[in-house]
Amino acid sequence: MRWAVILAGGGGKRLWPASRRARPKQFLPLAGTGETLLAATARRLGAVCDRERIAAVFAADHGELVAAELGDLDPANLIAEPEGRDTAAAIGLAAVVIGARDRDAVIGVLPADHYIGDEARFAAAVDDAFAAAEIGSRIATVGVVPTRPETGYGYLEIDQTAEGQPIRGPLVGEIDQTADPVRPVVAFVEKPDAGAARSYLAGGRHLWNAGMFFARADHWRAEIERHLPDTAAGLAAIEAALDDPAAWAAPYVAMPRVSIDVGVMEKTDAVVCVPGDFGWSDVGSWASVAEVHGVDDSGSAHIGDVFSIDGERNIAVADADAVIGLVGVSDLIVVASGKAVLVTTADRAQEVRELVAAIEAGDREDVL
Amino acid sequence: MRWAVILAGGGGKRLWPASRRARPKQFLPLAGTGETLLAATARRLGAVCDRERIAAVFAADHGELVAAELGDLDPANLIAEPEGRDTAAAIGLAAVVIGARDRDAVIGVLPADHYIGDEARFAAAVDDAFAAAEIGSRIATVGVVPTRPETGYGYLEIDQTAEGQPIRGPLVGEIDQTADPVRPVVAFVEKPDAGAARSYLAGGRHLWNAGMFFARADHWRAEIERHLPDTAAGLAAIEAALDDPAAWAAPYVAMPRVSIDVGVMEKTDAVVCVPGDFGWSDVGSWASVAEVHGVDDSGSAHIGDVFSIDGERNIAVADADAVIGLVGVSDLIVVASGKAVLVTTADRAQEVRELVAAIEAGDREDVL
Repeated sequence: MRWAVILAGGGGKRLWPASRRARPKQFLPLAGTGETLLAATARRLGAVCDRERIAAVFAADHGELVAAELGDLDPANLIAEPEGRDTAAAIGLAAVVIGARDRDAVIGVLPADHYIGDEARFAAAVDDAFAAAEIGSRIATVGVVPTRPETGYGYLEIDQTAEGQPIRGPLVGEIDQTADPVRPVVAFVEKPDAGAARSYLAGGRHLWNAGMFFARADHWRAEIERHLPDTAAGLAAIEAALDDPAAWAAPYVAMPRVSIDVGVMEKTDAVVCVPGDFGWSDVGSWASVAEVHGVDDSGSAHIGDVFSIDGERNIAVADADAVIGLVGVSDLIVVASGKAVLVTTADRAQEVRELVAAIEAGDREDVL
Repeated sequence: MRWAVILAGGGGKRLWPASRRARPKQFLPLAGTGETLLAATARRLGAVCDRERIAAVFAADHGELVAAELGDLDPANLIAEPEGRDTAAAIGLAAVVIGARDRDAVIGVLPADHYIGDEARFAAAVDDAFAAAEIGSRIATVGVVPTRPETGYGYLEIDQTAEGQPIRGPLVGEIDQTADPVRPVVAFVEKPDAGAARSYLAGGRHLWNAGMFFARADHWRAEIERHLPDTAAGLAAIEAALDDPAAWAAPYVAMPRVSIDVGVMEKTDAVVCVPGDFGWSDVGSWASVAEVHGVDDSGSAHIGDVFSIDGERNIAVADADAVIGLVGVSDLIVVASGKAVLVTTADRAQEVRELVAAIEAGDREDVL
């Protein structure tokens, strides 16, 4: 059976102060619909998978937030990591837990904190990826057709001749749904520089790696055993004590921190890809939040209670209770969340990491 | 006896969101010492007046804040206005209450929300003003020697020949403490335009009106009777029920809203002035808050928990709990207080009134 596993263990700081340790990005209503990214992810997956086979892996610390967002899922499908150990461990844990309940499980793992614009096309791509994974002995992924020479994403390089047809055409604009969408993946490519990103966009052989991977549960286990023996040993220990989650902590925490991309995807040969073109964003920057949310006539994106006099191209995000007032300022990013306020610009926003380090050193971890 | 009455009834919005209805400017630690402006005012007055004769008039709504700041004053000296009716009513009320306890009271009224740099020189000027008021049948004021062509303050025009000596000299720099400091006031001048302000600074006949006024209690009553008969009638009604503050509300609320400047000072002839040069500010703008607080090497004033990466000339004010993070931004005013955040520039800060109106209209009065 098809299982969709939401990877909700992230704790990214790129969107601080809205995203913080106690409530990372997936728990924020950043798509502008009021729905959190996590709840939207679960809702979307309802179209590709029976609801009783939608699961989530998340940090135990966020159990209450997950219960609030995913309360309608089977409680047995809410899989708490004792501590975050990145995606390889999380996927391995899901394969153990779900594999024990369904020997023929095909598990698609999907990030909890991304945005999808066209949900019907998303569902079609996921359906194709599940079908490609059901064949077995390979991992299928959905690669997103790039719309700009983005340097902030990883790419999948596709063999454009392997299926007997170049994919240059379908990758720009509409996907040709009549052709077999499944292509072999030649390589996983890290974030490129600007020149490489431009050539990827022009060449038609590269898709954005959106972190969506599909494989049979037993194939996930086999790949981890082959490439990540320490992780596999931990999983075996957990499997031996499957009914006693308290016993998972020691073997889980002992696993290496490694992503599925680095630990498995970049090493294995048997990866195929379904191209997808459905208005995807990783919502990884304030600029992308503004893009997802949309801007008003002044070019500004105001999320929450924002009052502005004579400002342009601002991105202002006020959490549930906060009020932001802007007077005569433009081209700023202003985020108010709880006790913390960030003011920066799109150009400098990546330096928020330094700021977070300074706040940590300044004894105000309470706002991180 | 000499009585110092702190006028603590103000509710200014110029420093929103730090200053708000429930906690206006005088209750904020804006002088950078941790002390609120009100507490600093009371402390300073201890040098010119016995502590048991320091009093305050304030809005009943702020009773708890006043008690917290002025808890060491005689509770009988904490005079709550049923509702704010501006300074003429507040001074009249103080004259009634204190006059009943001390027939020879000389009452100096001083704003609760100003900054004084040199407290010894301040005390000397106040001492001279009390002495000038004790003569009776006149109001004495302390006028601040201007240091710049400020258009945001009112001015006192002095008769520079009346005491037989021009005051041009002493007004610039040091006051000549050997000369009689008391000069007749020719006129109260409203906020001037830039040209007039420059000529005032050059001419040496104008002092800043700092809102500090001194007169015998019976003279305050007589001046109000002469110029503000409706206020006087209300005061008479209160005097008739002096032991029953609950009975004050109706006559007090019926008084006209009028400042002592407009209601009395601009109309009466018998005003004298003591020039003072003691580093005064009305702390009426964020720029003046920065000036009072002092700036760091980057030209920025950071009050509270502010973390900045690569910014210059910012004024950032974080209230007790808040944290402000600035990355790569300059020349901004950023204020975080409770649930509200303001981002503006020094040039545009006066338009915060419009913003406050928009927030009121936008149903977020909870942050005003």
